Amino acid sequence: LVAGALTEIAGSSDVVDRGFVTYSNTAKQQMLGVPADILRDHGAVSRQTAEAMARGALRAAAADIVVAITGIAGPGGGGPGKPVGLVHFAAASRSGALTHAEMRYGDIGRGVVRKKSVLQALAMLKAMAEAE
Amino acid sequence: LVAGALTEIAGSSDVVDRGFVTYSNTAKQQMLGVPADILRDHGAVSRQTAEAMARGALRAAAADIVVAITGIAGPGGGGPGKPVGLVHFAAASRSGALTHAEMRYGDIGRGVVRKKSVLQALAMLKAMAEAE
Repeated sequence: LVAGALTEIAGSSDVVDRGFVTYSNTAKQQMLGVPADILRDHGAVSRQTAEAMARGALRAAAADIVVAITGIAGPGGGGPGKPVGLVHFAAASRSGALTHAEMRYGDIGRGVVRKKSVLQALAMLKAMAEAE
Repeated sequence: LVAGALTEIAGSSDVVDRGFVTYSNTAKQQMLGVPADILRDHGAVSRQTAEAMARGALRAAAADIVVAITGIAGPGGGGPGKPVGLVHFAAASRSGALTHAEMRYGDIGRGVVRKKSVLQALAMLKAMAEAE
C-alpha cells in the first residue's frame, strides 16, 4: 500500500526501486532476512521485527531509504499485550539512521488502520529523506 | 496494489503469502529472476516479461497461484508500439497453467489505468483459482 501511494505520481518509477509485501513469517525471513529467533521471541508484530524488516529491505534493495510496517489491522488477530490496531514501523537509511514508531490505533476498522499506517509510513520516509 | 486489494479482507494474511513490487528492472531481475535478455529484447512492458515475472513469483513464493502486472500507467513513459495504457498481465499456477492478457486502456489517467489493472489481475487470479 505504501508503494502504491508512492507510485500514484507519474514518473515515480524513477525513484521507487521495489517493495516487499511479506504477509507470512516465511516471506519475512526469505525476502527480508528477518531472523527466526526474532520472530519467535518477539513475534511478527514487534519493534524488533519491524527494525529487522527495515534493515533487511536496505540490504536487499537499491534504495537509500526504506520503511517497514508490521501490525494487526483487525478485526481479529489481537492477543495478550498486542491488541488490534497495534502497528510497529521502522525506517532506515543507508547512511545508518534508524527510526521506530509504535502506534496503538485501536479497533477502529481494518481499512482505517491500514490508511493511517500508510500515512505514518510516508511521514517517516519523508522525515528520513529530509534528514539525509 | 493487488496485494493491498487482496488483504482488505480480515484474515487474508492466512492465504496471502507475499507480494513483489518490482518497479526497476534490477528489482525484476533480483526478486523474480526475469532474465536480462528478455528485458533487453522485449522490454519491461511485454508479454515475455509478464510471463517471466509470474514464473519467477511462483518459484520464489510459497503460493499456488500468482499474478504479475507490467504496464505504462502514464501520463508519460509511452513509446513506439507501446502507448500509455498498455498493460501486460500473466497469471500462473503451480500445476502448470499460464494465462496472459494484453490490455490497451489508452491515456485515460494514471489512477484509472492502475485501478483497471488491479481488477483485471484479480479476475485472472480468480479464474485460475476456479480452474485448479
